[in-house]
Amino acid sequence: MQAVLNYLESRQQQFVEELREYVSHPSVSAQTDHRADMQRCADWLAAHCRDLGLQVRVHDTPGHPIVVARTPRRRGRRHFLVYGHYDVQPPEPLELWSTPPFQPQIRAGALYGRGASDNKGQHWAHLKAVEAYLRTGTELPCDLTFLIEGEEEVGSVSLESFLHRHRKELACEAVVVSDTGLPARDLPALTYALRGIAAFELVIHGPDRDLHSGIFGGSVHNPAVVLCQLLGRVHDSRGRVTIPGFYNEVEPLTAGERQQLRRLPFSERAYRKLLGVPALFGEAGYTPNEQRMARPTFEINGLTSGYQGEGSKTIIPAWARAKVTMRLVPRQRPATILRRVRAFFRKHCPRSVRMEFIPGHGCAPYRLDPAHPWARAARSALERAFGRKPVLMREGGSIPIVIRFKEILRAETLLLGLALPDDNAHSPNEKFDLEVFARGQRMSAWLWQELAR
Amino acid sequence: MQAVLNYLESRQQQFVEELREYVSHPSVSAQTDHRADMQRCADWLAAHCRDLGLQVRVHDTPGHPIVVARTPRRRGRRHFLVYGHYDVQPPEPLELWSTPPFQPQIRAGALYGRGASDNKGQHWAHLKAVEAYLRTGTELPCDLTFLIEGEEEVGSVSLESFLHRHRKELACEAVVVSDTGLPARDLPALTYALRGIAAFELVIHGPDRDLHSGIFGGSVHNPAVVLCQLLGRVHDSRGRVTIPGFYNEVEPLTAGERQQLRRLPFSERAYRKLLGVPALFGEAGYTPNEQRMARPTFEINGLTSGYQGEGSKTIIPAWARAKVTMRLVPRQRPATILRRVRAFFRKHCPRSVRMEFIPGHGCAPYRLDPAHPWARAARSALERAFGRKPVLMREGGSIPIVIRFKEILRAETLLLGLALPDDNAHSPNEKFDLEVFARGQRMSAWLWQELAR
Repeated sequence: MQAVLNYLESRQQQFVEELREYVSHPSVSAQTDHRADMQRCADWLAAHCRDLGLQVRVHDTPGHPIVVARTPRRRGRRHFLVYGHYDVQPPEPLELWSTPPFQPQIRAGALYGRGASDNKGQHWAHLKAVEAYLRTGTELPCDLTFLIEGEEEVGSVSLESFLHRHRKELACEAVVVSDTGLPARDLPALTYALRGIAAFELVIHGPDRDLHSGIFGGSVHNPAVVLCQLLGRVHDSRGRVTIPGFYNEVEPLTAGERQQLRRLPFSERAYRKLLGVPALFGEAGYTPNEQRMARPTFEINGLTSGYQGEGSKTIIPAWARAKVTMRLVPRQRPATILRRVRAFFRKHCPRSVRMEFIPGHGCAPYRLDPAHPWARAARSALERAFGRKPVLMREGGSIPIVIRFKEILRAETLLLGLALPDDNAHSPNEKFDLEVFARGQRMSAWLWQELAR
Repeated sequence: MQAVLNYLESRQQQFVEELREYVSHPSVSAQTDHRADMQRCADWLAAHCRDLGLQVRVHDTPGHPIVVARTPRRRGRRHFLVYGHYDVQPPEPLELWSTPPFQPQIRAGALYGRGASDNKGQHWAHLKAVEAYLRTGTELPCDLTFLIEGEEEVGSVSLESFLHRHRKELACEAVVVSDTGLPARDLPALTYALRGIAAFELVIHGPDRDLHSGIFGGSVHNPAVVLCQLLGRVHDSRGRVTIPGFYNEVEPLTAGERQQLRRLPFSERAYRKLLGVPALFGEAGYTPNEQRMARPTFEINGLTSGYQGEGSKTIIPAWARAKVTMRLVPRQRPATILRRVRAFFRKHCPRSVRMEFIPGHGCAPYRLDPAHPWARAARSALERAFGRKPVLMREGGSIPIVIRFKEILRAETLLLGLALPDDNAHSPNEKFDLEVFARGQRMSAWLWQELAR
């Protein structure tokens, strides 16, 4: 193991140069004029993996290629998957970048460029740890498969059917994903839970056309008023959702979990300033971090009705529409929650209007017991690499691919994020911290030891 | 008087031909390419009035010309104003017209063409009654001034300052306006009250940009949710507005007024079908006609917030906005009501968001006591011309010019509408009923007798 660590220690400059070349590929999956760049980036990655001695295939898909790279197999070893993505967000607006997004530069201990931390740098750390084993002739304690897709930023459309078709080859003990964050350079984290999501649209139909509010107003129900009444009763004054059964399946936070979340650096004043609000607001009885990571929400994402232009138009609108998404937490199920929400609105909607409830996409929440053997192994690896006990975190967003791994491969996912809060993922001046990069490589090197135990 | 009536009786065909020529002018005030047509129409009208022996001036304005035509003056007679407008609504969509809008045709006892009933035919009836007096050498019992503007369909922008500048010349006992409706060909109406209006916008500002609902959702107040909560509490389940003081100044309907409104032909089933709603809804304790003519309302005209495109976008919107207009009834005052509404929202708006209340245009409601001498005179004239006691009606819309007459000229207005409910004002296939036209002329002829008493 010392040989592996020494190898990593001595090769930092080379690794950063390689990463710089990787990041220089403008692999923007959302923009069709980058289609050839996507192929070139996948081929470059495949060639690099082959050079390391991995067995590589580049799979064509209806979208962008998927790169699969396997370490040499040995009978009796556990098999783990390392997931990542080589596609990146569009770099626009370009004028806000200090240096060009695809001409990566090193400044103040970080590599700046689109995709540096999301996600090229993060899976590069794992690849370099494997390289250290292979190049030093140290036996890898596990079999590994790198699964690096090119459509993460556009919804991983091709990956689901790919997982179905290759489920035997990809069958594994667990999936390792470094695509989330850590709170600080010296505070590593295991993200053990994700919120799910359930979307719907609520449309209230009133008269069959916009009506003159002078001639008819008063004798016909205004659908925008009804929509506001229905949505206005969803929350009570303490920020709780009043829909019957909304919290039924919610797993309460344990004292231990709450203690872990309190370890996260947090200043209410700084947070308030970051969001630009006069005061924070959330479900009573929970801290802001608990509210946004571990409690379910009901959010209106959009409202549309009637006249929206300049000045005023004196109409009773024909209809009013709201777009809503709910964030769900472990063990809430999207279909069950949507059913209860629909029943709630049905019950309270007056018969003077027609209500339309349109269920949308859903994704289950995710939780891996932090005491699970794989989670323990990951925590040990993080502690060895960073020299500090990792914090056990939750993530407020949803990562649908984690649910797909669970459903299709029956595998749990270890979320070992290496992005700092100020790494500007999806924003101009994205960067990847080189100290975190190095620690990430050591974390990966230890991880295979721990997971093999 | 018999000579006047005989004259009218014998000239119907000629009057209809003249009206047909008047309606053939495409005097669309809203469309700049009809600017020359507007001038031609005003000049044609002025020439016609001069031929009748009226003293005429065409006044230029920053918008379209105003035609003022005075009957020969005689000392000691009362002076009344007859208001009308020669401008018309745009005729589009043209493909829905059975015959071209500016090539008027007679079918089934009605003249079809844009502007036939709104408003050319209606003030033409008054002009023809005056012609009958002048051509038969019958003494007109009053001095009259026709004030025919060209901007009614675009907000009467030039008229207010015109009234101010000419207030001495226009000083009068009352204004006669035929620009509203009557319930049926054989049921004349005096419209003695109009609703007023007060507009505002309510904007709730949350975070200083749209936020990711996964990362931040739960810890920050969603401004669209707050907007719905505020607007959702404005009405109770019985359709009453809950804003303190909203009804304070409302003059209750008398038993007599309610009896009059019950005379209006009304079928709930037909009305429901006309609006295309599953059921009617309004303030409990009032009939639909009372609700829409004589009770105040609070209507959301438009809602805007966040993402409104296809699919979903998982954001907490930075702001949410509602456009609202309230219809007011006699003696509510726009400024007072706006103050109470603002106070209501201020009181209930949480401090986790910033509320912006933007007052908009307002117009006072109007009411003329149906027992007022001028109203009595008008009722007699209507009964003589139509052979039936007129119904005393209210109008749910607002006619700002009536308030201007009251404020600037200190004159009450007699609303003696000649448009039938199916005359398609503002719609394709606008028409004017020729039987109502003839009765309107007789009504006008009698009116000057009654008003002179």
